[in-house]
Amino acid sequence: MILLLTSDPRDDPDAADAGTADWLAHLERAMPEETIHTVWTHYDPADIDIAVIVQPPPGSLAHLPNLVWIHSLWAGVETILADETIPPDIPIVRLQDPHMADTIAEAAAMHVLALHRKMPGYRALQDQHIWRDLGYTETSETRIGILGLGLMGSAAARVLAMLGFQAMGWSRNAKAIENVESFTGDGGLADMVSKSDILVNLLPLTPQTRGILNRELFAMLPPKANVVNLGRGPHLDDDDLLEALDSGRVGHAALDVFQEEPLPGDHPFWDHPSITITPHVAAPTGRLTGSRIVAANVRRYRADGNIPEAVDRRLSY
Amino acid sequence: MILLLTSDPRDDPDAADAGTADWLAHLERAMPEETIHTVWTHYDPADIDIAVIVQPPPGSLAHLPNLVWIHSLWAGVETILADETIPPDIPIVRLQDPHMADTIAEAAAMHVLALHRKMPGYRALQDQHIWRDLGYTETSETRIGILGLGLMGSAAARVLAMLGFQAMGWSRNAKAIENVESFTGDGGLADMVSKSDILVNLLPLTPQTRGILNRELFAMLPPKANVVNLGRGPHLDDDDLLEALDSGRVGHAALDVFQEEPLPGDHPFWDHPSITITPHVAAPTGRLTGSRIVAANVRRYRADGNIPEAVDRRLSY
Repeated sequence: MILLLTSDPRDDPDAADAGTADWLAHLERAMPEETIHTVWTHYDPADIDIAVIVQPPPGSLAHLPNLVWIHSLWAGVETILADETIPPDIPIVRLQDPHMADTIAEAAAMHVLALHRKMPGYRALQDQHIWRDLGYTETSETRIGILGLGLMGSAAARVLAMLGFQAMGWSRNAKAIENVESFTGDGGLADMVSKSDILVNLLPLTPQTRGILNRELFAMLPPKANVVNLGRGPHLDDDDLLEALDSGRVGHAALDVFQEEPLPGDHPFWDHPSITITPHVAAPTGRLTGSRIVAANVRRYRADGNIPEAVDRRLSY
Repeated sequence: MILLLTSDPRDDPDAADAGTADWLAHLERAMPEETIHTVWTHYDPADIDIAVIVQPPPGSLAHLPNLVWIHSLWAGVETILADETIPPDIPIVRLQDPHMADTIAEAAAMHVLALHRKMPGYRALQDQHIWRDLGYTETSETRIGILGLGLMGSAAARVLAMLGFQAMGWSRNAKAIENVESFTGDGGLADMVSKSDILVNLLPLTPQTRGILNRELFAMLPPKANVVNLGRGPHLDDDDLLEALDSGRVGHAALDVFQEEPLPGDHPFWDHPSITITPHVAAPTGRLTGSRIVAANVRRYRADGNIPEAVDRRLSY
């Protein structure tokens, strides 16, 4: 029996956009043969063998004695890995949604194209009623460095290469993607970053990648390079970014994720002329496609007992 | 012998970015076997058989008794067609630069993606320090109507289809482009426009297309549709656009071209919250690739006397 738990499990089930209610409706349509409980329904905790979760509060799963595995509906699992009430031997499966990868690749392409075509500069000129050509660098001469070549980073790299950019990607293991130069290791990171006119972060958040967008890394960038953070807020050192923007080391930053979300109203990012803010919308989880992927994984487990490939707790992804 | 004439032929030949000097350097490199004159050099007007032009002032070519044909370095030829000092039997060849088509297709993709991902809305929210998800419509459910399927419109349609949009195009004759729905005629225009969540204009400017972006056309759009004008300024009725934006018929407009350029400092477009202005930079003419195309056309003419396909004066393109 399945228990669905979301970040705000007690939200109003009648609200049109309630996360829990909407996910429940999609999951029930995708696997009508399953009984799916939520905090609104009465269930015996001992009956639950699978938990389907969207960033639930820590401790939410501690009352389930017979829990076998957990399916996260988010690609990021740092919150659930930090929940010490979950025994480390319970597999955590994250949603690997190729559709979501396409959506985040689209967001990456949008931000890269806007920076490449100097839209923040033209926006500032428009505010001043100034007609001025800011020049154009050929796409084929513009180098995009992508941090992370997982499902999302690879999708972004492919789209950017297809658009004619010089696409490069950095990952733990070398990746062979057509027209995308692969970099690995600390040396590879420095090498790629030093050539990145636009740097796009799509890394998972792990102890190794936390704070990777910092002063040392910005110092390796070409002058006036642009930074796009579509990963996680804690990848970025906020103060180091502000310093790099003010010194001109970084030209512009497009940020979709933040240390604290919602971004506090008094955060200096809001009013910075060289920062574009979007409210964590790069990869809206497709509830339709996401539910279908979960249903397929649950059915396979019911049929043969096989749990999909789980998160490697050592690597945190 | 060739005469090169630009919009400001007397600009300083020593200036770094002087249009004439820079074009001359590129053209001489591309066809070193040709003698190319400009207003700075002494030549016998009777020796000139080919004029290579970039929007020269009307009457500039009237002194050339033996002119055989004209090669425009611009894709748009409305200015030269309006010059009554040029005999109508002199063929005018316009630059058909696939590279420039790629560059304008990139600009179309950039504007469409920014509108699709609601960037003007997020920009306004950032100004107010408001964190709010504006929602996401699937790319596969978003319909882009492209006015004009010439070299530029076709390139834009292909890129947009590749990015996953429902791409549609309207042209004089039906066009077969993979994954792009083709519309023709007045009925086809109304049909396509009524389905266009984002309408992109890439038409040539002709008596038939002048003012096509007007009240009647905006009234056919779905409510809150977005408009992107990358064609020519006179395609758009400025007052009708302002009315359509204020009534909510059009949600946002991204404009690269204007009736008067530079756009006058007191024009109401500058401060309109639902207008994005770029200063005619969608398709910077690639001087390197443009010069090579001209050189190839000139060489073919010298070899066999064949003049490349010229503009049809009845159609104006």
